[in-house]
Amino acid sequence: MLEDKSVSKTSLAEIGEFGLIEQIKEGFPIRLETSIKGIGDDAAVIDYGTEKTVISTDMLVEGVSFSWSYMPLRHLGYKAVVTAISDILAMNAIPKHILVSIAVSNRFTLEAIDEIYNGMKYACDKYEIDIVGGDTTTSLSGLILNMTAVGAAKEEKIVYRKGVEENDLLVVSGDLGAAFLGIQVLEREAQVTKVNPNNQPDFEPYSYLIERQLKPEARLDIIRLLAEMDLKPTSMIDISDGLSSEVIHLSKENNIGFNIYEEKIPLDPAVIRTAEEFKINPITCALSGGEDYELLFTIKQADFDKIKGNPYLTVIGHATTTGADNFLITRGSEQMIPLTAQGWGTAEEEKEN
Amino acid sequence: MLEDKSVSKTSLAEIGEFGLIEQIKEGFPIRLETSIKGIGDDAAVIDYGTEKTVISTDMLVEGVSFSWSYMPLRHLGYKAVVTAISDILAMNAIPKHILVSIAVSNRFTLEAIDEIYNGMKYACDKYEIDIVGGDTTTSLSGLILNMTAVGAAKEEKIVYRKGVEENDLLVVSGDLGAAFLGIQVLEREAQVTKVNPNNQPDFEPYSYLIERQLKPEARLDIIRLLAEMDLKPTSMIDISDGLSSEVIHLSKENNIGFNIYEEKIPLDPAVIRTAEEFKINPITCALSGGEDYELLFTIKQADFDKIKGNPYLTVIGHATTTGADNFLITRGSEQMIPLTAQGWGTAEEEKEN
Repeated sequence: MLEDKSVSKTSLAEIGEFGLIEQIKEGFPIRLETSIKGIGDDAAVIDYGTEKTVISTDMLVEGVSFSWSYMPLRHLGYKAVVTAISDILAMNAIPKHILVSIAVSNRFTLEAIDEIYNGMKYACDKYEIDIVGGDTTTSLSGLILNMTAVGAAKEEKIVYRKGVEENDLLVVSGDLGAAFLGIQVLEREAQVTKVNPNNQPDFEPYSYLIERQLKPEARLDIIRLLAEMDLKPTSMIDISDGLSSEVIHLSKENNIGFNIYEEKIPLDPAVIRTAEEFKINPITCALSGGEDYELLFTIKQADFDKIKGNPYLTVIGHATTTGADNFLITRGSEQMIPLTAQGWGTAEEEKEN
Repeated sequence: MLEDKSVSKTSLAEIGEFGLIEQIKEGFPIRLETSIKGIGDDAAVIDYGTEKTVISTDMLVEGVSFSWSYMPLRHLGYKAVVTAISDILAMNAIPKHILVSIAVSNRFTLEAIDEIYNGMKYACDKYEIDIVGGDTTTSLSGLILNMTAVGAAKEEKIVYRKGVEENDLLVVSGDLGAAFLGIQVLEREAQVTKVNPNNQPDFEPYSYLIERQLKPEARLDIIRLLAEMDLKPTSMIDISDGLSSEVIHLSKENNIGFNIYEEKIPLDPAVIRTAEEFKINPITCALSGGEDYELLFTIKQADFDKIKGNPYLTVIGHATTTGADNFLITRGSEQMIPLTAQGWGTAEEEKEN
């Protein structure tokens, strides 16, 4: 995950904006039949015939969305693609195209920009995405990326945040909280290295957590699985800000309450072990951590048999009644604790977090 | 064009990201039948049926793309929409939807952001555009906007940069160089005001130039006119970086040379007058100034009768032969001067500019 320091460094002033665009264009030949025109004209042209166009945009700002102290450039490129297409997947649509805007200050070399695009290319290859356009500009401080993702779906397949009915089951893919703990581990070691530059961190015990933070995956496999199962969720959202915040989004959009069960929330053993080491409740990591890019969706109870026993999908709760609040039902004690955007607890407790 | 200083100031921390999104969403109800889903889900949903989707993205960075010293917030919002849809128009497509990403540091108030969106709303009303999505995030320094524009066109109507043939006529809409001189006037007065805060600039003689800089228009009218005339250009590009740079783009993309005639380049009287005041050649303003957002396109000679006498369209030259260079034919002396991306002249002269 470390940068190769031996590569040559070309300043962006030497190559110029058009040179940079040419180089980016060469790295991303278009492959999809739906890509009529890619990089190099005033706009991309995409043809979805009778399918609907689904489109989303995300901005990533250095020092806010990511930090160089632990995010290698290639991983940044990969993650930028993943976060962009995750929004398209959350509509039950297939991501197909991406447009990338990038603003860089002149402290970045061409090789650094290349590394970012290499990471994007790797993700585009994996998820079968064409980069069809973008913009390059100068920034006065740091790097800013904007990703616009475009996807396609038949109208009747599109799933919105709205659509939940009472007693629908709440389902989550994969497991939660790992990306948050990954960043805790990386930040802790960055602090140690600041004091002791000879620090040789042993990341082995945390490899799953770090991978979830630096190289998250978008759940295209789950969208394909749902299609194979002939299962259309009644609502769906991707988990970018933590389970709690996303449940509240679904609740507000549908004016319905949810109960989620602490003991059902899927946690990797590394999450439980590392949360203990950091003296955090692992459930907090799942509820408030964010950046998991798993899918959260609701299904009708009648569809339960379709997902029963599937190792990638976990029922974590259910919609209750119209106008109700959202609760976490704790393990054992069976307490009902109100969910908040920051996790759970009362407003007073929230402030302490 | 001055800000209203009396309005209340709400910090963004008070309202939060979701509050900001809610407020933006309320300001932009969707109107177009093709907008199936707008702001407030993981992605927008757009339906173009049998038409093709055309999409483009632009990033605007404070201090690089614009400066507060002369760009009021409302104008920034308006101009951001115009620059975004200009790329769609340059494909001979009709812009329909926009997604806006915005990163702001906390020195911005809610009222400041509102002003930007008010400008966008004004442009969206004028050009019949729906804002259907976006992203809001924090920046560590200044304002960054990213605009993604989406449009529609029948496949056979789309015009690319490629398609020029020998002897095609080169046509430009409107007039050129005014936006560049507008910024010269605004910068000059900003400098004077810095020294003498009581400076009361008289912008009256420059009102056309300043309007072209602060509130440019996208040439939707020209795209509609071309459709009415049943005239499909053989190639098209919008003039964002100056006529010279755009001619060179068309030349490279088609491996063909262009001759343009100095005396044909359309200049407003205010451009000629003000260029003289600034001791600049007005042709330099047209060739290198940029930000005019006019359309530059080629047509077959057989189509000349369709545009003859039209006050909005001027034939400024023609394509010559495959592999040829690009030249400016000067007035009177009939010299052929090579065009460069910076304007015209030899490489040596270029360095002096």
